[in-house]
Amino acid sequence: MAQQWFPGMSLGEFELIERYFTGRGAVRDDVRLSVGDDAAIVTPRAGAELVLALDTIVADVHFPADTGSRFVGHRALAVNLSDLAAMGAEPAWALLGLTLPAADESWLAGFASGFDELARRFGVALVGGDTTRGPLAATVTVGGWVPVGEALTRSGARHGDDLWVSGTTGDAGAGLAILQARLAAGGAIREELLRRFLLPEPRVDLGRSLRGIADACIDISDGLAGDLAKLCRASGVGARLDCARLPRSPQLLESAGEVASMRFALTAGDDYELLFTAPPASRRRIEELAAATPVSLIGEITAAPGIHLQGAGLERDLVHGFDHFTD
Amino acid sequence: MAQQWFPGMSLGEFELIERYFTGRGAVRDDVRLSVGDDAAIVTPRAGAELVLALDTIVADVHFPADTGSRFVGHRALAVNLSDLAAMGAEPAWALLGLTLPAADESWLAGFASGFDELARRFGVALVGGDTTRGPLAATVTVGGWVPVGEALTRSGARHGDDLWVSGTTGDAGAGLAILQARLAAGGAIREELLRRFLLPEPRVDLGRSLRGIADACIDISDGLAGDLAKLCRASGVGARLDCARLPRSPQLLESAGEVASMRFALTAGDDYELLFTAPPASRRRIEELAAATPVSLIGEITAAPGIHLQGAGLERDLVHGFDHFTD
Repeated sequence: MAQQWFPGMSLGEFELIERYFTGRGAVRDDVRLSVGDDAAIVTPRAGAELVLALDTIVADVHFPADTGSRFVGHRALAVNLSDLAAMGAEPAWALLGLTLPAADESWLAGFASGFDELARRFGVALVGGDTTRGPLAATVTVGGWVPVGEALTRSGARHGDDLWVSGTTGDAGAGLAILQARLAAGGAIREELLRRFLLPEPRVDLGRSLRGIADACIDISDGLAGDLAKLCRASGVGARLDCARLPRSPQLLESAGEVASMRFALTAGDDYELLFTAPPASRRRIEELAAATPVSLIGEITAAPGIHLQGAGLERDLVHGFDHFTD
Repeated sequence: MAQQWFPGMSLGEFELIERYFTGRGAVRDDVRLSVGDDAAIVTPRAGAELVLALDTIVADVHFPADTGSRFVGHRALAVNLSDLAAMGAEPAWALLGLTLPAADESWLAGFASGFDELARRFGVALVGGDTTRGPLAATVTVGGWVPVGEALTRSGARHGDDLWVSGTTGDAGAGLAILQARLAAGGAIREELLRRFLLPEPRVDLGRSLRGIADACIDISDGLAGDLAKLCRASGVGARLDCARLPRSPQLLESAGEVASMRFALTAGDDYELLFTAPPASRRRIEELAAATPVSLIGEITAAPGIHLQGAGLERDLVHGFDHFTD
């Protein structure tokens, strides 16, 4: 089913790729062949392991279809960089599979600039990909490096570990709720919460700093409680989460109030903060990292499975997390 | 916009991934961490460069939406392996981004088995990916290895090179035409042409054999003429294509007749054969490869740009190839 085209479009696939997706992101010495051939060629790094992640974002599932394309380009890469951050890896290159209903030049220019800006900031070169016609979606693969044996995983959490989270959670979910008119906010509060949803910041530097310190790490894409459940399941442990210590932003508290902000902080997705565990003996080293990226101690890892929520008037067990395929 | 789900579905994302996408493909020593964490970890190969490709297939663009899911799983991987074949690379692992409107278990089982069968045959491990809800599409990234400096590219063709193609072309396009009731065929002819569309065979072994022999190589996904134009453009050369020498299968000739079969062979996509160039001095070595994979000498590379078609009653210049974004 090749030779599909966009009726009435003057922009060919070749021109589209050349105009919007060639030379994007950082210039890297390890890229031997970039966009424009059947595949990309890069040079491995001695003494390092290769870390690979792939995430898809779909219009009206992961972002409202009318989201500005600059934000869509940012998000497509950010969610993947966040996966590398959770592994403690240093990002290097990306491949982009972009499916779009029409070759709209202004949309493409915005998408490319959002992608490009984030890629440059993290030293990532766009080395290949595919553009196809169809319902709006973007799949990105990122590759990066981690010193042999030093990657962080979900499965290393141990009984007695402290449980930490970076930044504040729930803000992105509140931003989405504002976009969808489920939450009201104005002025600077509205701007900040929208920014948290529209421009998620992958915690790449923190992830790298946690090598040799954290026992386990995961990024929060589906909500803190659900992602904590995944980490615990992978590690064969449980967790006690002290809700009173959950880091909530003043903007979230102001717009959503005490009860709803707790729900956002626990269950809303899209924060792309890091949730990690480490032995209590590492507290001082972790608090030192907070100079660059805020982190909060929010609970502990338990031997018994399951997530126990306590504090802030809550006292309940959470058996299952939340995911994309169940109700 | 996390916590999306399929109303009424009992299959969670975790169970879906565990049931259908864990342990798929080959078992490989170089996989340190596979499906189930934020990213995969693999060990690079000494003395080799890393080759990365990403291709997306979208329902009703690249395959009819009602195509059996086993064939969709096969196709999603095959089109990517074909890209590695065109580089002369040895495939190693894949990541899968699967977007589907509902977690239909029988559809998933078929998709996974089609993907798995092809992956095992080529020694590819499925190491990661993402499942999302949305319009049916699959994006696959494959990674593989090529000895340093030995990759084939589109850009190495030289004036005076022979032009070669593997297998026969046009069959997959005819198979699609049969599926869409634009072409009539029955019995064994129908079966063979449908098989060519539904189960494209990436020419991985041929690609690897062409290292050190071919000057340039591309896989035929968008039709021989269009992909030849891309190769010539990348190499800064032109080509004379002897249409009388185009390899057409007896099934294609029988079902489509002389004129239409030529059109299929020149312009229909989805064949995933390799189109490559090599100096005439390499003819004997290339003909020896034909014992494993049939190849045909179909023209030559010219200094002047553009594609000149001749033979079989045709005499015309083809200025532009065909692509997905122009009419």
